Amino acid sequence: MQRSHHCGQLTPEQIGQTVILNGWVQTRRDLGGVLFIDLRDRSGIVQTVFNPDYSGEALQIADKVRSEYVLAVKGTVVKRDEETVNRNLPTGEIEVRITDIEVFNSAKTPPFFIEDGVEVDESLRMKYRYLDLRRPEMLKTLRLRSQASKIFRDFLDNEAFIEVETPILTKSSPEGARDYLVPSRVHDGEFFALPQSPQIYKQLLMVGGVERYYQIARCFRDEDLRADRQPEFTQVDIETSFLSPDELLGMMERLMQRLFKETVGVDLELPFQRLTHAEAMSKYGSDKPDLRFGLELVEMNDIVASSGVKVFASVIEKGGEVKCLNAKGCGTWSRKEIDDLGPFAARYGAKGLAWIQVKDGEFKGPIVKFFSEEEIAAVKERTGAEEGDLLLFSADTRKVVADVLGALRVKIGGQLGLIDENVFKFAWVTDFPLLSYDEDQKRYTAEHHPFTRPREDDLHLFETDPGAIRAQAYDIVLNGYEVGGGSQRIYKREVQEKMFDALGFTPEMAYEKFGYLLDAFEYGTPPHGGIAFGLDRLVMLLSGRTNLRETIAFPKTASATDLLMDAPAPVEPEQLELLHIKLVPKPEKEKK
Amino acid sequence: MQRSHHCGQLTPEQIGQTVILNGWVQTRRDLGGVLFIDLRDRSGIVQTVFNPDYSGEALQIADKVRSEYVLAVKGTVVKRDEETVNRNLPTGEIEVRITDIEVFNSAKTPPFFIEDGVEVDESLRMKYRYLDLRRPEMLKTLRLRSQASKIFRDFLDNEAFIEVETPILTKSSPEGARDYLVPSRVHDGEFFALPQSPQIYKQLLMVGGVERYYQIARCFRDEDLRADRQPEFTQVDIETSFLSPDELLGMMERLMQRLFKETVGVDLELPFQRLTHAEAMSKYGSDKPDLRFGLELVEMNDIVASSGVKVFASVIEKGGEVKCLNAKGCGTWSRKEIDDLGPFAARYGAKGLAWIQVKDGEFKGPIVKFFSEEEIAAVKERTGAEEGDLLLFSADTRKVVADVLGALRVKIGGQLGLIDENVFKFAWVTDFPLLSYDEDQKRYTAEHHPFTRPREDDLHLFETDPGAIRAQAYDIVLNGYEVGGGSQRIYKREVQEKMFDALGFTPEMAYEKFGYLLDAFEYGTPPHGGIAFGLDRLVMLLSGRTNLRETIAFPKTASATDLLMDAPAPVEPEQLELLHIKLVPKPEKEKK
Repeated sequence: MQRSHHCGQLTPEQIGQTVILNGWVQTRRDLGGVLFIDLRDRSGIVQTVFNPDYSGEALQIADKVRSEYVLAVKGTVVKRDEETVNRNLPTGEIEVRITDIEVFNSAKTPPFFIEDGVEVDESLRMKYRYLDLRRPEMLKTLRLRSQASKIFRDFLDNEAFIEVETPILTKSSPEGARDYLVPSRVHDGEFFALPQSPQIYKQLLMVGGVERYYQIARCFRDEDLRADRQPEFTQVDIETSFLSPDELLGMMERLMQRLFKETVGVDLELPFQRLTHAEAMSKYGSDKPDLRFGLELVEMNDIVASSGVKVFASVIEKGGEVKCLNAKGCGTWSRKEIDDLGPFAARYGAKGLAWIQVKDGEFKGPIVKFFSEEEIAAVKERTGAEEGDLLLFSADTRKVVADVLGALRVKIGGQLGLIDENVFKFAWVTDFPLLSYDEDQKRYTAEHHPFTRPREDDLHLFETDPGAIRAQAYDIVLNGYEVGGGSQRIYKREVQEKMFDALGFTPEMAYEKFGYLLDAFEYGTPPHGGIAFGLDRLVMLLSGRTNLRETIAFPKTASATDLLMDAPAPVEPEQLELLHIKLVPKPEKEKK
Repeated sequence: MQRSHHCGQLTPEQIGQTVILNGWVQTRRDLGGVLFIDLRDRSGIVQTVFNPDYSGEALQIADKVRSEYVLAVKGTVVKRDEETVNRNLPTGEIEVRITDIEVFNSAKTPPFFIEDGVEVDESLRMKYRYLDLRRPEMLKTLRLRSQASKIFRDFLDNEAFIEVETPILTKSSPEGARDYLVPSRVHDGEFFALPQSPQIYKQLLMVGGVERYYQIARCFRDEDLRADRQPEFTQVDIETSFLSPDELLGMMERLMQRLFKETVGVDLELPFQRLTHAEAMSKYGSDKPDLRFGLELVEMNDIVASSGVKVFASVIEKGGEVKCLNAKGCGTWSRKEIDDLGPFAARYGAKGLAWIQVKDGEFKGPIVKFFSEEEIAAVKERTGAEEGDLLLFSADTRKVVADVLGALRVKIGGQLGLIDENVFKFAWVTDFPLLSYDEDQKRYTAEHHPFTRPREDDLHLFETDPGAIRAQAYDIVLNGYEVGGGSQRIYKREVQEKMFDALGFTPEMAYEKFGYLLDAFEYGTPPHGGIAFGLDRLVMLLSGRTNLRETIAFPKTASATDLLMDAPAPVEPEQLELLHIKLVPKPEKEKK
């Protein structure tokens, strides 16, 4: 019995037709000898009826059927009686009177209900992922992801991009995150590495004259996982030659516009807002600001430097800063509510959190007494403080102040209901620093990666102040998430060598690790640049979810485990022997 | 200077227009102070002219330019004088008179010429792959591959398939080829494996109700490589629920039809020929026969069993067989030419090669005297032997006879010019054996994989003659290559258990390795089946090439090495420490 229709697609138009359906038993009810089976397939659910009047033997067979059995049924579509119409079901106006049935497979009672919104322990869902995927909201997300990939591809294909597959078995790189390694059987003692991104390959494709490349590429990072990280993840990887940054960014904006229009029906306004990294950090305390609401941070150094608040003065003296977040309308909070912000701020590194309430026309709070009247007037003007506001002050290093007030801004914006969940607010953050100083390694590391092109007007800073060099790099942010990032790339050997030098590589080290790239720069490398979008995260935001794992068919847990297949797993000693490796026995004390 | 046009797209239509071009210097000629630079980009080549009359300073700059420099130039499109028109160049009717130039980058002399058809050592091409890719034929193949992927996706999307990405970090499987392993940092002593295919995941997606899945998936096999194997390769992976094999195969035929029409403009006739595995082996000595020509093999056992040719009789007695290939028109070959077939046949396992020439109306050759007149008449009739034919006989085990005559058939078909290189001759080979006996392991192994569904009418053979069970499996062959293969899958736990049993797994072993799948079969698994196409090989055939590496942007050598990046490579001791593994030192004697 080959299916003629899909369950969810039956409408009153098919009334009178004989149809064959395939699917799973969603529910089975016996009402006085008449059996009602809701049959589910990928498209939806329809009610089938087994009645002694017309079902014959099929009724006996259906009687043994239980939830999640797999069936083929044949019957006639009929209109339901007015009083039995189910308005909650798209197919609720009709039902199918069954004359034939075939049971493809039986089913044990599943460990959880196959329906949306059920509260199930996530590890159980991951172990039985094949049942979890049957839930309509999971299938819907898989479809959305597939659709999103299709839109990316169609758009890029239309813009004359060539899809090129780059290797998964590649070389370990000394920079960036930790690599997954793959021992080589043929090359004794040597290893492949899984790519953290196709970065170098896509640059070599530009050297190779491909001019416009894309790939929806799997990438790997052996890092400790957070809620929004997976050991393998997917990026839409793009690289172009001869395009100005404006041309590239404009094209990517049109791509996002099409993606959001075609998947969730949202019209994005172009162009996207652009702000420099310095602006983003200053106003929002974040390099991926949520721009759906205001609550901008305000610099206070000049006003409070000479106030009586000692901690402000001393922080400023040490090169730190004092900033203020005006939590509009929170001035009526109780002392307890305000104090509760303390532990939250501490998580972001705050050693304390000073505050002022504007209440009954006056500034109130422990630090007010240390301010002069002029200073109070200046604070009031700078922060736009009005009756009922709450001013929150952070004084620390630039980084801590940004982290603390940035986090408070988002928290308070949420509490005040300033965040419209239906708005998608994109922006570009540009002019990232090229390098950041790593206190552990006592050297500079690349903020993006070692192939990012510095701004021409900052090149001279390699000699004097590498930390101040701005990169031709741009992140694309959406509602407080970084959904993509890219840069113009270095394409001159001498600039690349300066970069490696700034990272602390000797020329020999640089050549040993990246000689093929340095060589390539000498054979006619065009100016090029690109971007990569995080597909998992984009799909997460498009589907209104907050957990990356919901966007991935077979995700891994936070400890990088596949609970379904139980991977990783021990392997046979002969396998290791062939790879010329052996396990290092665990020291006794570490064993549990 | 942002490009206004692509080099290869300029036509007389642009005459009089000012254009800006970006690209690489293909050639540079100085004709009495006038410089001609052929500029190349992805689209093709155009001649630019630098003349003291209009080029000014640009001429001085251009004078320093050499091959493969990267330029932007600005100038006016003009018609060439009639006598200087280059009919070999699509842009040969025009040239561009340059007024401005910018040198983006210089270039050393490349290690080989950047043009098609140059004889270059392949290892040099792979080391400088970024230069090799600049050759028009390489870029053309990359484009073709991209286009083929797009067509697969568009077709499948249109047939309501959902693209789902499955994990690359997965679990080692005890069956099939050797796995690449990935040590886990978090799970001491445990390993991920790179997938040989997404087989189990796609089946679990069917259990999960996805119904129609596809993915252009990277797969990995740690096997010794041949010319048409790569350690990582790409397959178009497809799985469906509730479809009959005929529905699936018909859909795939339409897919191939569209692919060949849209890429190389060839109309494929549907439906494709179907032949069983037994037929293919019998008539062509191959499970992937080249059907562009006849030269079918002929069974001889009944005719020659009682002839005086002792080796024939003894082979037949031992259960082997005797078959004949009628090499039409080769009867005029010299004795030396015929004898030269011996060493060729020996490579395929032949211990000897008997032959008969039909010459001057008579059978001639060393074995003729052992035949009776009736036997000669029977041979003549069975083989259709005519004046000028050459009959080649192989007598051995079934396998050796098939290998020897199958190879001879292709060799002679080629020599006789019977193979039309412009024809694409598809066929399905069906009813593969489910199991084959592995003499080394002294057990049955799966001919396709352990999840292939046996034919219903052969299920009883599990108890009596597992080797005779036919599978519901089908390969799709094209011109002597297997370009895809698939099967209906087992979807009942008890059948899967029988299969594991036939493979020599204890129930405990089977559950340890594949418990999640056996469990899944108990929760409502639909009937399902699928197929996978080898993308690399399809692109190879579409582009008329014979080497898989030409279809891959960054291929590996036959010893699984990336010559460009020099991977695999040694890694830092700290990296291994984190993974809880160490290298096994090579025994002294093995060191070189």
